[in-house]
Formats: sequence, structure tokens, C-alpha cells
Amino acid sequence: MKDQSRRKFVKSSLGASLGLGLSAPAAKELFVHHVYFYLKNPDSAADKAKLIEGLNKLAKVPTIKFVHIGEPAATTRSVIERSYAVSWLCFFNNLMEEEIYQTHPIHLKFVEDYSALWEKVVVYDSTGPKR
Amino acid sequence: MKDQSRRKFVKSSLGASLGLGLSAPAAKELFVHHVYFYLKNPDSAADKAKLIEGLNKLAKVPTIKFVHIGEPAATTRSVIERSYAVSWLCFFNNLMEEEIYQTHPIHLKFVEDYSALWEKVVVYDSTGPKR
Repeated sequence: MKDQSRRKFVKSSLGASLGLGLSAPAAKELFVHHVYFYLKNPDSAADKAKLIEGLNKLAKVPTIKFVHIGEPAATTRSVIERSYAVSWLCFFNNLMEEEIYQTHPIHLKFVEDYSALWEKVVVYDSTGPKR
Repeated sequence: MKDQSRRKFVKSSLGASLGLGLSAPAAKELFVHHVYFYLKNPDSAADKAKLIEGLNKLAKVPTIKFVHIGEPAATTRSVIERSYAVSWLCFFNNLMEEEIYQTHPIHLKFVEDYSALWEKVVVYDSTGPKR
């Protein structure tokens, strides 16, 4: 049995034998912040490149644990929303670290320097256990 | 210097010395598939739990490289969409592996067993370089 599996097994056995939902330590959370940017000039490759340049600077906020900058994929099923220009996905350890990001000077400077490019943003913040 | 940093350094030095944007090998892609589920009975904790149970089975599709199941976070700025019930985020190496997932028996069984629970899904598929 691998160490990690063993720990999981021990934890769940303990939980089961004590009959308490509370006996196992709380699973670590992951805070997922996903932003979809819609450009004022959706056909401008220059504006899109400029926004991506800005996001690459924004990625330096120290509480960001993982980041991915994307564009709509080639998939086209009817349930797929693909009219945004740029996807900005980042992970934080928790809500508090996301709040630090929101007010971090790098973030404020990003908004100041690049917000003229976008028409709107749609943001989804989700939390759930790390797996 | 760590091995990875050294490789990056060697790659970028090579690129710089040859003066060619093409000299570095293409960065690896990451395919990000993010689904937001809206329940028929948004206030039913039982339905939400059942959907999460289904997603935990769906997570076993072998081409999934990373998965996170989430619920709307406590953040409430006006740009934040939080009327969905469950967020399903997964990473694939590329479009082909996402297509394998779409038609995998585990995925088809998930849709068969759980789709009665949701009113709609909104899907965002994004691709961009792995960092």
C-alpha cells in the first residue's frame, strides 16, 4: 500500500470506527477563479495579444498557485460558450488568498493598464476539496 | 540550478543565440474543460449531492489529467456568476483526449444516470500553453 493510500485508509477507518463525520481532518480546499474576457474589439488580434501580455504580468501575484491563459478551443457543441476572447484560470489555497490577489498592487495596475480593452468579464469562483 | 530551470535556460539561450523564434520546441498545450451545472431543483441539497456523486464516478475517465468539483464561493462582486450549483473542471493533454472523454462509456453512463438532475449546462473549453 502506498503511503498516501495508507493514510487515506487509516483516516477513513478511524472515521468509520468512531462513527463520527468529524474525526477525519478537513480536506484541503482549492479556490478556483475563472474569468472570461470579452473584448471591445473582438476581432482585433492586437488587442487580444495586449490583454494576454497583461495577464502574463498579472500571473506574478504571489498568492496564485496555478495559472492558465487560454483561448476558445475548437469544440463547438451547442452548450459550449465560445464568444469570449481569453480565459484566465487561477487557483488559490483559499478565499483569503484570493482576496489578497484582488487588492494586490500588480492586480490594480493590471486593471488600470488593460481594462480599456474589455467590454465585459464573466467570473466564476468555485471552492471544493482538493483531490 | 535545478534540472528544469537549466533546461529552460538552455532552451531560451539557444533561441536567443540563433535569433529564431522557431528554435525552441513548441510549448505543451493544456485543454481546460469547465462545465457549470444548473439544477432543475436548485434548492435541493439531495439533488446536488447526487450530481456530485455522479461526477465522482465521471472523474475516473482515464484521459482526465486533473479534476476539481466545486460549488459557488462566497465572493459576490457583480461580475461573478453564482447561480449554478456545481462546477466541474477538468484538464486534458489535448483536444483528442477530451474527445475520448466525451464518448467514453463512463461519460455516457454519467449522462444517462444523472442528466435528469440538471436544467442546463454551460461549458467553456479553452486551450493554451502549459506554464
